[in-house]
Amino acid sequence: MTSLLHEVAHLGHAELLTPEPEKSLGFFVDVLGLTENGASGDSVYLRTWDDYEHHSLKLTASAASGIRRTGLRAASEEALHRRVAQIEARGLGLGWQDGDLGIGATYLFTDPDGHEFELYWETERYQPPQGLEPALKNQAQAYPGRGVCVRRLDHVNFLAARTEPNGEFICSALGGRVTEQIVLDDGTISAQWTHFAQKSYDLVYTDDWTGSSGRLHHIAFATDTREDVLRAADICLDAGVFIETGPHKHAIQQTFFLYVYEPGGNRIELCNPCARLVFAPDWATISWSQADRAKGQAWGLATIPSFHTHGTPPVSPGARDAG
Amino acid sequence: MTSLLHEVAHLGHAELLTPEPEKSLGFFVDVLGLTENGASGDSVYLRTWDDYEHHSLKLTASAASGIRRTGLRAASEEALHRRVAQIEARGLGLGWQDGDLGIGATYLFTDPDGHEFELYWETERYQPPQGLEPALKNQAQAYPGRGVCVRRLDHVNFLAARTEPNGEFICSALGGRVTEQIVLDDGTISAQWTHFAQKSYDLVYTDDWTGSSGRLHHIAFATDTREDVLRAADICLDAGVFIETGPHKHAIQQTFFLYVYEPGGNRIELCNPCARLVFAPDWATISWSQADRAKGQAWGLATIPSFHTHGTPPVSPGARDAG
Amino acid sequence: MTSLLHEVAHLGHAELLTPEPEKSLGFFVDVLGLTENGASGDSVYLRTWDDYEHHSLKLTASAASGIRRTGLRAASEEALHRRVAQIEARGLGLGWQDGDLGIGATYLFTDPDGHEFELYWETERYQPPQGLEPALKNQAQAYPGRGVCVRRLDHVNFLAARTEPNGEFICSALGGRVTEQIVLDDGTISAQWTHFAQKSYDLVYTDDWTGSSGRLHHIAFATDTREDVLRAADICLDAGVFIETGPHKHAIQQTFFLYVYEPGGNRIELCNPCARLVFAPDWATISWSQADRAKGQAWGLATIPSFHTHGTPPVSPGARDAG
Amino acid sequence: MTSLLHEVAHLGHAELLTPEPEKSLGFFVDVLGLTENGASGDSVYLRTWDDYEHHSLKLTASAASGIRRTGLRAASEEALHRRVAQIEARGLGLGWQDGDLGIGATYLFTDPDGHEFELYWETERYQPPQGLEPALKNQAQAYPGRGVCVRRLDHVNFLAARTEPNGEFICSALGGRVTEQIVLDDGTISAQWTHFAQKSYDLVYTDDWTGSSGRLHHIAFATDTREDVLRAADICLDAGVFIETGPHKHAIQQTFFLYVYEPGGNRIELCNPCARLVFAPDWATISWSQADRAKGQAWGLATIPSFHTHGTPPVSPGARDAG
Repeated sequence: MTSLLHEVAHLGHAELLTPEPEKSLGFFVDVLGLTENGASGDSVYLRTWDDYEHHSLKLTASAASGIRRTGLRAASEEALHRRVAQIEARGLGLGWQDGDLGIGATYLFTDPDGHEFELYWETERYQPPQGLEPALKNQAQAYPGRGVCVRRLDHVNFLAARTEPNGEFICSALGGRVTEQIVLDDGTISAQWTHFAQKSYDLVYTDDWTGSSGRLHHIAFATDTREDVLRAADICLDAGVFIETGPHKHAIQQTFFLYVYEPGGNRIELCNPCARLVFAPDWATISWSQADRAKGQAWGLATIPSFHTHGTPPVSPGARDAG
Repeated sequence: MTSLLHEVAHLGHAELLTPEPEKSLGFFVDVLGLTENGASGDSVYLRTWDDYEHHSLKLTASAASGIRRTGLRAASEEALHRRVAQIEARGLGLGWQDGDLGIGATYLFTDPDGHEFELYWETERYQPPQGLEPALKNQAQAYPGRGVCVRRLDHVNFLAARTEPNGEFICSALGGRVTEQIVLDDGTISAQWTHFAQKSYDLVYTDDWTGSSGRLHHIAFATDTREDVLRAADICLDAGVFIETGPHKHAIQQTFFLYVYEPGGNRIELCNPCARLVFAPDWATISWSQADRAKGQAWGLATIPSFHTHGTPPVSPGARDAG
Repeated sequence: MTSLLHEVAHLGHAELLTPEPEKSLGFFVDVLGLTENGASGDSVYLRTWDDYEHHSLKLTASAASGIRRTGLRAASEEALHRRVAQIEARGLGLGWQDGDLGIGATYLFTDPDGHEFELYWETERYQPPQGLEPALKNQAQAYPGRGVCVRRLDHVNFLAARTEPNGEFICSALGGRVTEQIVLDDGTISAQWTHFAQKSYDLVYTDDWTGSSGRLHHIAFATDTREDVLRAADICLDAGVFIETGPHKHAIQQTFFLYVYEPGGNRIELCNPCARLVFAPDWATISWSQADRAKGQAWGLATIPSFHTHGTPPVSPGARDAG
Repeated sequence: MTSLLHEVAHLGHAELLTPEPEKSLGFFVDVLGLTENGASGDSVYLRTWDDYEHHSLKLTASAASGIRRTGLRAASEEALHRRVAQIEARGLGLGWQDGDLGIGATYLFTDPDGHEFELYWETERYQPPQGLEPALKNQAQAYPGRGVCVRRLDHVNFLAARTEPNGEFICSALGGRVTEQIVLDDGTISAQWTHFAQKSYDLVYTDDWTGSSGRLHHIAFATDTREDVLRAADICLDAGVFIETGPHKHAIQQTFFLYVYEPGGNRIELCNPCARLVFAPDWATISWSQADRAKGQAWGLATIPSFHTHGTPPVSPGARDAG
């Protein structure tokens, strides 16, 4: 390493699939507080209030739940082309396409497990319409004050048949680094948290207990404060949203969390990092053993069993998924 | 720009001068909750609990208050040498020295205004002694639970005879970028907030009303939460620490803040970013006009007049400093 | 005293007058998060989510702003009649009337300054309609998750030509007690905070600088947390609501506060007591001197001058009111 | 009822027994942030910073853990004598004694289950020594800023062979009221939450699974905020204090909680009511069924099994106590 390779600037957006499009839309707008920003075909585009781009989430009606695509913004046009070369060298490129609402030319590819990504440089800076203009000029959009009012799409946690090749790909092809990981007693790396800059994780891979490929564990939205996560639990409780576990603090990454299921079945995390950033350019990956994990979350909460039985889309019961 | 130039990894530490060394030490240890980690000559080394390095603050007895030196860690050894070349090309280098407690070879230099810096790569990873070992392996030190219990040194705000040459130097020589600035009606840039990665500012320059060079406006420590800032106000109130202004939210950078004076006279900010990060690699610098500034802080609090009369070290009254 | 005279159970509701009824309604519903619960004539009834009664606020269109009436619930039917006897003995009774939406027979009276009150025992316990049912059976209504989402009407702060006779009346006729007060250097009691039980204040009187009678300084709504008050400031900022002062912490009563003006001109406080309750049955009234008050609020914020120039309804400029 | 019978003003203090007196003292002083205020024999007196009386906790060395006595302050001297008459009429009086540090003549009695109480009127108002003087005159003591920094002793939760006779005694003899309770399918009332004024509970009884008498489930200390409870979890984690369950929100009473064991084995709750008060003078007791309880805590956390196996002092295994 000759410098911090900061070639992927950040996670841009995710496209989520839902078999319950109207109910899912209601959840994201009314419960989480996202703002609609366009529609096309079977998709509705939604944005968190602090997103400087067009959208943070593309919600698409589909026969099954899951994640269709994850968008990453390159750090520059040159970085985009350098990364495309690296991806193509690994045989994982799908080619260029014309983009999407708010996004210019994008390069499609998959990770080794088959999750689809788009990498892009050109992006449309959000211009709030009347009524959504913020009072402060360093903010993208007025604070909606509706529901949980999440600030940004924070990270995506993918299920993969095998974690390691994917984490390796994120690092070698895209310039990511592994901040933390789980290493089983037999040496298997069963989960990896990768990041691109000071935010301590952006893309996470977790071994899929069904051995399937391309599935989703969850996507996460960040709130301003821990209190917002607590308030979110009250909002979800009274709105009839299924709360899976939390609020509590993860041992890994120390994130304050709440997990719920949106009406389409996808797991959604509401999270707050509580000011944690990773600054060391030579951060030594933290490895958590099975014995470490047996202690549960940071303050002792047992990891909920459904973390290891529910992914989207669900797979057949024979494949040991209770989704 | 061919990529995000992330060659300075982060702000490492600051050396603060105090004419009241014992009282200042009491303030940083008992009120802010820092931990002593060594001493040498007239200096005591102190650390925030989340710092992976040896120290966050070096507190040095001196006839006058102020900041002696600011430490920046390079992103790699190569980045260090590349930055040294840039600094030398600008004629601002002071040369290599053997380092300090916990720090390897450092390159000394000044910004155009004369504030001294050290840039280094080699650093000693903190190993907590018995009694300070954290329960979670991804944390540097046990949470002290003493006083405000600040998490990290967050930023330094320098006073300079003229802001612009210094902001330009941070960007061109060190790879920083200006996220926000104040532009007076006559076109003068009177303050600039520069950053190195996703944290939205690390080093700030503000025009010194006395025309002096090398002075300090404040150093800032980040807390985990806004609530910690509110609690800090209660702690300071009962500890007899002078509260200058706050808690409130800055319009610029939207930081939640509290300003106090440590017993040596230096202004200390306790701050919380409330999850704000700057992600756009092509972030357009936000300029605040005099009319914008006249609106006060985010929620309308008038900027306290002493922000423009108190800096350290104090200068003679003829120079219009009430310090 | 032979026991704690807890004959007034609590503040029940307030009737606020507004010359901007539609805008005021929008403020209370969308910004503060109250829920409409009926209408009658020029009035709309609104409730906070934790109110077990029919409504917390009656909003009435009127040529001028101000407070028309304050509702107090007696601790029992017998207590109601005992208090009526005390009121009548002081010649301040206006007589019985049939009540209002959700309220049975009420006894109307005024305080010495002329503010109108209703005292009642019979009340309709709120039954939430479908869609507003709470998940927990010890809660009156589902948590709306809209805007500030205030929990309850907390207190009323009246302006009066003279504070003392009114505080004396609340104590002797209604069983209140003065927990804190301001005593000027000339011995004048210029403000009193009275309460009925453990909540440390319910009805407050402040000297009216115009010498007028029957005016309002503010009504206050309590939030669950201090964080809700901070979030309220963001909500008001982006909703274009005028923020007068705060968030900060009062020295008196130590309440965490934010003051805004609703579109009809009435001052509204959003407050959080931060767990403070008064337990001592023989609490000695705290008196704050002019010198104490000169120190400003708890953390040093200067008391905003408009606290002494803005009341509702406004009076003529000759009477020194800038309202 | 002809009025709210508010004859017991509030819970005053508790005497806790510990077989590990030094370690327990360290826990209460360093981790919870209580302040020592005298010692006598095998006892140390400790106070929370917002207590207007001499002490909130008396910590006494003993062969076994548990609670020795609970102190209640009467609402007046007359109320004290009226309550003594009621207690004696039930044959549960133990007689007058000379009091204790800071407390005048007290009347000793037991509840039907045998837990010892003292009821008193005379109390010494706390005068902080130099160094502990608060900045605000409406506060008992300076905010210590040490550890969790709990504000007050909030409630005591007793284990009893049978809940009902005890709840009935608190109501009929002392003027308490039951705000919430658990009613089993066979009609047994297995837990009752009783209160004296607006605070929604002060004394709680829970059926003891061992059939023993006189044991303790937990004592609870209130914090200023929910954030303080979250921070307490971090403090306890790094201080090596056993965390039993939480932070989470109870369905019953909606208290935000964290349960830990102090070194002597007694369960300690850190709790925050989040602004909840019970205002209705005719509040209808909320009954929770077994089906309700099967849903777990407010946000779905399963009730920890040790809530039904750990009490103090521990009893023999044959009595089914895992304490």
